[in-house]
Amino acid sequence: MTGNTFGKIFRITTWGESHGKAVGVVVDGCPAGLVLNEGDIQQELDRRRPGQSKIATDREERDEAKILSGIFEGRTTGTPISILIENKDVRSGDYEKFKNMPRPGHADFTYWKKYGVRDYRGGGRASGRETVGRVAAGAIAKKLLSLKKIEIIAHVIQVGKIKAKSRDFDEIKKNVEKNPVRCADMAVAILMEEKIMGARKEGDSIGGVVEVIAKGVPAGLGEPVFDKLDSDLAKALMSIGAVKGIEIGLGFGYTDKLGSDVKDEFYMKDGDVRTRTNNAGGILGGISNGEEIVCRIAVKPTSSIAKPQKTVDLVEMKEREIEIGGRHDPCICPRIAPVAESMVSLVLVDHMLLSGLVPRNL
Amino acid sequence: MTGNTFGKIFRITTWGESHGKAVGVVVDGCPAGLVLNEGDIQQELDRRRPGQSKIATDREERDEAKILSGIFEGRTTGTPISILIENKDVRSGDYEKFKNMPRPGHADFTYWKKYGVRDYRGGGRASGRETVGRVAAGAIAKKLLSLKKIEIIAHVIQVGKIKAKSRDFDEIKKNVEKNPVRCADMAVAILMEEKIMGARKEGDSIGGVVEVIAKGVPAGLGEPVFDKLDSDLAKALMSIGAVKGIEIGLGFGYTDKLGSDVKDEFYMKDGDVRTRTNNAGGILGGISNGEEIVCRIAVKPTSSIAKPQKTVDLVEMKEREIEIGGRHDPCICPRIAPVAESMVSLVLVDHMLLSGLVPRNL
Amino acid sequence: MTGNTFGKIFRITTWGESHGKAVGVVVDGCPAGLVLNEGDIQQELDRRRPGQSKIATDREERDEAKILSGIFEGRTTGTPISILIENKDVRSGDYEKFKNMPRPGHADFTYWKKYGVRDYRGGGRASGRETVGRVAAGAIAKKLLSLKKIEIIAHVIQVGKIKAKSRDFDEIKKNVEKNPVRCADMAVAILMEEKIMGARKEGDSIGGVVEVIAKGVPAGLGEPVFDKLDSDLAKALMSIGAVKGIEIGLGFGYTDKLGSDVKDEFYMKDGDVRTRTNNAGGILGGISNGEEIVCRIAVKPTSSIAKPQKTVDLVEMKEREIEIGGRHDPCICPRIAPVAESMVSLVLVDHMLLSGLVPRNL
Amino acid sequence: MTGNTFGKIFRITTWGESHGKAVGVVVDGCPAGLVLNEGDIQQELDRRRPGQSKIATDREERDEAKILSGIFEGRTTGTPISILIENKDVRSGDYEKFKNMPRPGHADFTYWKKYGVRDYRGGGRASGRETVGRVAAGAIAKKLLSLKKIEIIAHVIQVGKIKAKSRDFDEIKKNVEKNPVRCADMAVAILMEEKIMGARKEGDSIGGVVEVIAKGVPAGLGEPVFDKLDSDLAKALMSIGAVKGIEIGLGFGYTDKLGSDVKDEFYMKDGDVRTRTNNAGGILGGISNGEEIVCRIAVKPTSSIAKPQKTVDLVEMKEREIEIGGRHDPCICPRIAPVAESMVSLVLVDHMLLSGLVPRNL
Repeated sequence: MTGNTFGKIFRITTWGESHGKAVGVVVDGCPAGLVLNEGDIQQELDRRRPGQSKIATDREERDEAKILSGIFEGRTTGTPISILIENKDVRSGDYEKFKNMPRPGHADFTYWKKYGVRDYRGGGRASGRETVGRVAAGAIAKKLLSLKKIEIIAHVIQVGKIKAKSRDFDEIKKNVEKNPVRCADMAVAILMEEKIMGARKEGDSIGGVVEVIAKGVPAGLGEPVFDKLDSDLAKALMSIGAVKGIEIGLGFGYTDKLGSDVKDEFYMKDGDVRTRTNNAGGILGGISNGEEIVCRIAVKPTSSIAKPQKTVDLVEMKEREIEIGGRHDPCICPRIAPVAESMVSLVLVDHMLLSGLVPRNL
Repeated sequence: MTGNTFGKIFRITTWGESHGKAVGVVVDGCPAGLVLNEGDIQQELDRRRPGQSKIATDREERDEAKILSGIFEGRTTGTPISILIENKDVRSGDYEKFKNMPRPGHADFTYWKKYGVRDYRGGGRASGRETVGRVAAGAIAKKLLSLKKIEIIAHVIQVGKIKAKSRDFDEIKKNVEKNPVRCADMAVAILMEEKIMGARKEGDSIGGVVEVIAKGVPAGLGEPVFDKLDSDLAKALMSIGAVKGIEIGLGFGYTDKLGSDVKDEFYMKDGDVRTRTNNAGGILGGISNGEEIVCRIAVKPTSSIAKPQKTVDLVEMKEREIEIGGRHDPCICPRIAPVAESMVSLVLVDHMLLSGLVPRNL
Repeated sequence: MTGNTFGKIFRITTWGESHGKAVGVVVDGCPAGLVLNEGDIQQELDRRRPGQSKIATDREERDEAKILSGIFEGRTTGTPISILIENKDVRSGDYEKFKNMPRPGHADFTYWKKYGVRDYRGGGRASGRETVGRVAAGAIAKKLLSLKKIEIIAHVIQVGKIKAKSRDFDEIKKNVEKNPVRCADMAVAILMEEKIMGARKEGDSIGGVVEVIAKGVPAGLGEPVFDKLDSDLAKALMSIGAVKGIEIGLGFGYTDKLGSDVKDEFYMKDGDVRTRTNNAGGILGGISNGEEIVCRIAVKPTSSIAKPQKTVDLVEMKEREIEIGGRHDPCICPRIAPVAESMVSLVLVDHMLLSGLVPRNL
Repeated sequence: MTGNTFGKIFRITTWGESHGKAVGVVVDGCPAGLVLNEGDIQQELDRRRPGQSKIATDREERDEAKILSGIFEGRTTGTPISILIENKDVRSGDYEKFKNMPRPGHADFTYWKKYGVRDYRGGGRASGRETVGRVAAGAIAKKLLSLKKIEIIAHVIQVGKIKAKSRDFDEIKKNVEKNPVRCADMAVAILMEEKIMGARKEGDSIGGVVEVIAKGVPAGLGEPVFDKLDSDLAKALMSIGAVKGIEIGLGFGYTDKLGSDVKDEFYMKDGDVRTRTNNAGGILGGISNGEEIVCRIAVKPTSSIAKPQKTVDLVEMKEREIEIGGRHDPCICPRIAPVAESMVSLVLVDHMLLSGLVPRNL
C-alpha cells in the first residue's frame, strides 16, 4: 500500500535512508527449513556494492549484512528474517548546499512535493542505496529458486550506442563476472568500458540496456488478468531507480513485425511441448510456458553529472545553477544487474509459492 | 493475490469468459456522491467494442452495461458498483476443433499447464473480451479524474514500420477519434489503415505502438520504492493481453544518450517549478512531477492469423497444423487504446485516493 | 482495503443492496477442477433465506443463485466464479418514511455520517441481505473442505436466558436442522421457540449465542502473530451484522479460572499427539492443534422492533419517535447459523490454501 | 499474508524472537511531518516491560528503542520507521531441556507441526516478547491520534472472580497507573493484587478481563461489510497471545436481553446526534457513531505455571511430565493492557488514514 513492501507470499519490506544509521529489509514468508547464513547474503551484496571497479563510483560502502532474526541453528524457521546493514563512509556535508535545490533527474523535487519534509542527504530514501535491502532479500529468493534448478542472470547488452552480440545462457554465465561492465560479449565489453570511462572523463554519464534471463522456470507460473507474471516483472523492474522501460521477449521488436514472422510455433521435444522460437520471452497470456524468461530494461544515464545544471531554489523560488560533485557511477548498468536479478528472483519465488511449486515448509 | 483484482483503494475485480453467460466487474472504493449512470459507461464500452470499423473484427459484440448496485438516485453510495455485460453473438463451435491444439501466441497452452481444466471457447478467461470490465471501471475512474481536471488519452503512434509525427495533447484529442486507426497524425493514419488492410488481406496481422498521455496530474503522486507511479503503470499496462513492452518518457530512447543530453532542468514558470523538457515522462523517482505523464506500449501482432500454423495435440502429444478462421483484428492497436486509457486512469485515481487528493466522500 | 473483499488466496467480493436489482459475489482463487453446480449453492442459500419457518421473518426472498462464470463442463476453471441473486419481493415504500430518521441500532446513522449519500431502502448495503453473497461463497468453501474431510456446523446454544446442554459433533449434526431454532438440544429447542414467539408477540426481539464447530481441521493452520487462525476467525465472525462478541474455546470462561484448572495437557492417542481437554478450542498460539475448533458468537437482539423508539430527524435535526413495521426476525440466531458456518469455512479454506494443504489445482 | 504485517495504510511489520539478537518493527505509512523521538517510544515500552512491579515477572528486559530510519531533524519523513530493540538478559539454557516437550497451552506444539523447525528458546517467535514491536509502533499511532484528540486507555476490570466497579474515562485515566494491576477501581485493585500474589505462591496463574476505551473517535470510521471497525478491532485484539475472547459494548451481555432493553436511542445534544446509552460500544453497522468505543478481551491464565504438567516427547513420541521453572507473570492482564492499547491505536489510526481524517502529510 504505502510502497515499501513487495510480494504476496514471499514479502519483503525495505527501510532506510542513504545517510541514516542503517538500511535493511524484513523478509516475511520464506519457507522454513532453508539452510541460510550471512555469507549467502554477503556474496550478493558484494556484487552490488560501489567501489568494486574503476568504472564504478569509488565510494566505499562496506555493506556487511547482519541477520537479526528468523534463523535458528543454520536454518530458516518460517518467521521474519530481519537483515540490517549499517551505513558507513557517509559524507553528508556534500549535500547540505543543495538542500533547497532539487537535482534534475532526481527525486528531490517530487519527494518535496509529496512529503514536505525530506532527508536530503544523498537522496535519502530515494537513493540507490535502498537497493541493498532488495539484493539481500534477492539472495534468499535465489537460493530457494536454485533448489528448483531455476537460475537467474542479468548482463549488460548495450551501453550508449554499443550493443553486445547475443550469447546463450551458459556463455553469459561464464563471462558476465569477468569484466567490470558485466557484458557477456567479451570483445564488446572492452569497447563499453572505454565508452563509460570517456563519459566519466567528460563529467557526463551514459545509458544502456540490461537483460535478465531466468532459466528452468516451469510452465504454469503467473496469475491471470492483473497479476500476470509479466505484469509483476514489469512492476518489479520498473521500481528500480534509473529504469524507464521494460520489455519481455521481442518487446518493442514486435511492433514492426507481421504476425506470421513472430509466431512461436509449438513442437514436441523429448516428450515435452516446446516452442521453436521464443519471441514471447517465455510468457504467454501472462503465464510461463517453460521456455527461458527474457526481460530487458532501459536504464537512463545517471542523473548526477559533474557538468553544470540549471535548477531552482525551492525556498527562494528562484532559478539557480548547480554542479554536483560527489562520487557517482557514470553508467549504472553494471551495478543495476544484480538488483535486476534480485527483483526477478523475488517475483519468481513469490509465484512459485503462490502456485504451490515451492512449499511453505521445505 | 489471485489475479483478478486491481488497485489498492479504488479496486476492481473483473470476471467472465469470452463465451460464458456474461462478463463483468465489481468496482469497490469509488467515493460516494459521484453522479453516474449507465450512459457514462456505455460511451467507453462503445469505443472498445469490435465491429466499429472496417479494420476491426466484424464480430458484433453488443456490449450493454447494466449497473446492478452501488448507485442510488443517480449517485454513487460508496458501496461496490457491480456492472454486468451479457455475452451475445457467441459462436463457440468455431473453437471446438482446436480444443486440444493450443494456438501459437495464445494462452491456450499455458492455461492448460496451469489449471488442467480450461474453457477453450474463444480464449475463455484469457480472451480480449475480459477487457470489457476494465473499460467499464475505467469509465468511472475517468469521470472521477475529470473532476480534478485530469484527462487521459491514448493514440496509435506506430503500425508496423509506419510512425506518426509527434502531436501535442490538444491536437491528439481533436484527431484521435476521426480515423479508425486512432492515430492523431491524420495523413499517416491513412497509410496505417492501408497497411492494416493489407495484412488482413494476406491473412496476417501486424504490431504497433500506442502512447497514453495524462494531462493535469498534480505533482506528488506515487509511493516510494515499490509502488512507484511508474511501477504501477507498468504493471497495469503490461497486464493487457498483447502488450510486451512499456516505457515512460524517453524510455528505451534514453539508453543511447548521455546524461547531459537528456537532463530535464528545472525552471520557474508562472510561479511554479517546471521542467524545460519532459524526457522523464512526468515521473521522477516514482512520483509525478506535474508534467504530462507519457507512457508507450509495445503491441504484438494479433496471434490469431488465417495462415497455417504448427502446433501440437495435447491429448495425442503429436504435432499438427491448424488454420484459425474466426473474425480477428489484424492490428489490435486501435482497440487497445481505450483499454490502455482505462488502465492508466485506474492507476491514477487509485494514487489520487491514496494521497488524499480525491476524498473518500465527494 | 475498502471492505467488500475477504480472504487472501480464496477471495470473495460481495456486492449489492437490499432493495437494488440484485446481490452477488465474485469468488476468486477457487482451485481449478472442483465439481460445482448451482444446486450446491442453492442448498446453502435455502438454509439462510427468510420465510423458512414461523419464527423467522415472513418476507419471501426467493434466492435463486445463477453462476455466470468460472465453471466449464461442470468444473471450476480457476477463474473467478461470479454468482448473482436477483432481488424480488422488494417493498421499498416501507422505508421511505424513515429516510431521514435513523433506526436505533442500525447502520443508518453511521452510513450517513460516513458517506453522506445512502440507499435507505431496507438498510441498503448494511442489510442482512448482504450475507447472501457470503453464504453462496461459503457453499463453495465447504465443498472444498469436505474433500479434506473437514466439516463445519453452527448451532444455537442460547436464546435469551435459555441455554442448551452441550452435545457432541455428531449429535449436533443430526439434530440441528430438525427444529426451526437450529438448537441441537431438542428439548430446549422447544423452550427457545416459545421464547422467540413470545418476543415476537410483544413486538420485541431477543439475543442469543451461536456456536460454530469445525471438525477434522489438521494441525498447523494459521499464520503467526497477526494472521493467527483465531484472529482471522474473530474478524470473519465479527463482520456479521448483529454479532457483538466472539470467543474461542473457553473464551470468557477462562477469565475466572486458575492456570492449573484449564491447562490442556498433551497425551498420545493412536500415535498422534492430542490434548485431553480442549479448552483452547483447537488453537494454540494462533495455529490449529488438530482438535475441534470451537467458536461462539454473541448475537444482539434484532434492532428492528415494533415498539416505538426515539430517534432524530437528520434533516430537521429534531427528535422524533418511530415505529418500525415491516417483517423482521424476532431472534436472528437461527438464520445467522449458516452465515457463521460460511465465514468459518471461508477462513479455513483460505488458510488451507495458504498452507498448501489444498492445492491451487485439484 | 504471511502474518507479520498489520494494517492497510499505517502498516507495521514486526520481527524477532525472544532469545534472538533483537526484536523490532518497521512502520510504513506514517504521515510525514510528525514530531517524533525515541523518548516517545521508550515511554510506552516501559509500560510493557517485565520487572516493573512485584506482581510481574522479574525478568529484566531493558527494552531500549533505537530508531534507525524514517526520521529527519526530529520529524517523520513519510518513509519507513525502523525500530530495533536488542535482547538482553537472555537465559536460553532454561529452555534446552524442554526442546522436544511442548509446554501445554503454548505454541510449541503447533509451531512444530506447522514449520518442522523452531526456535524453542523462550517461545521463539511465539513469545510475548514479540509484542515489543507492537507497542513501539503503537506509541507512534497514539501520538498521531492525540493530534486529533483521540485518547485510548486500557484497564483491568476482572482478575479471577474479582470484578472492578465501572468507572468513567477520566477516573480510569487518573487511577490506572497508580496500582500494579492497572485497575481503575483502587479498592478492588488491592484485592486483585492479593489474588495474583496468591496464585504465584501456589505456582499457579489466573485469568482476567481487560477493557479498552477510545474516546474522541469521530463518527464515520470503518469500512462496510468485511473491514468493519469492530471486525478489525476483533482481529487486532485476538492476535495478542493470551486473548481468547473479544466483545464490543455489551458484547455477550446482549445475548440474554430483549431488543427493547438494549436499544440505543438517538437524541440531540448540543447540536449533535448522540445516543442516550452506549450498549453498542460506539460502533453501529461496523462504523463508529461518535460515542466511546468500548472493547473487552478475555485473557486466559498464563500457561507457564510451576506445577507439574503432562506432555509428550515429540522425538520419542512418549508421554512425559514437566515442571516449567523460569520467571513468569502469574496474571498477564496488567502487562497486556499497553499491548491492547497499542493494537486499538493501530486500528484507529489506520481507519483515520483510510477515511482521510488523518492526512498522508501533516
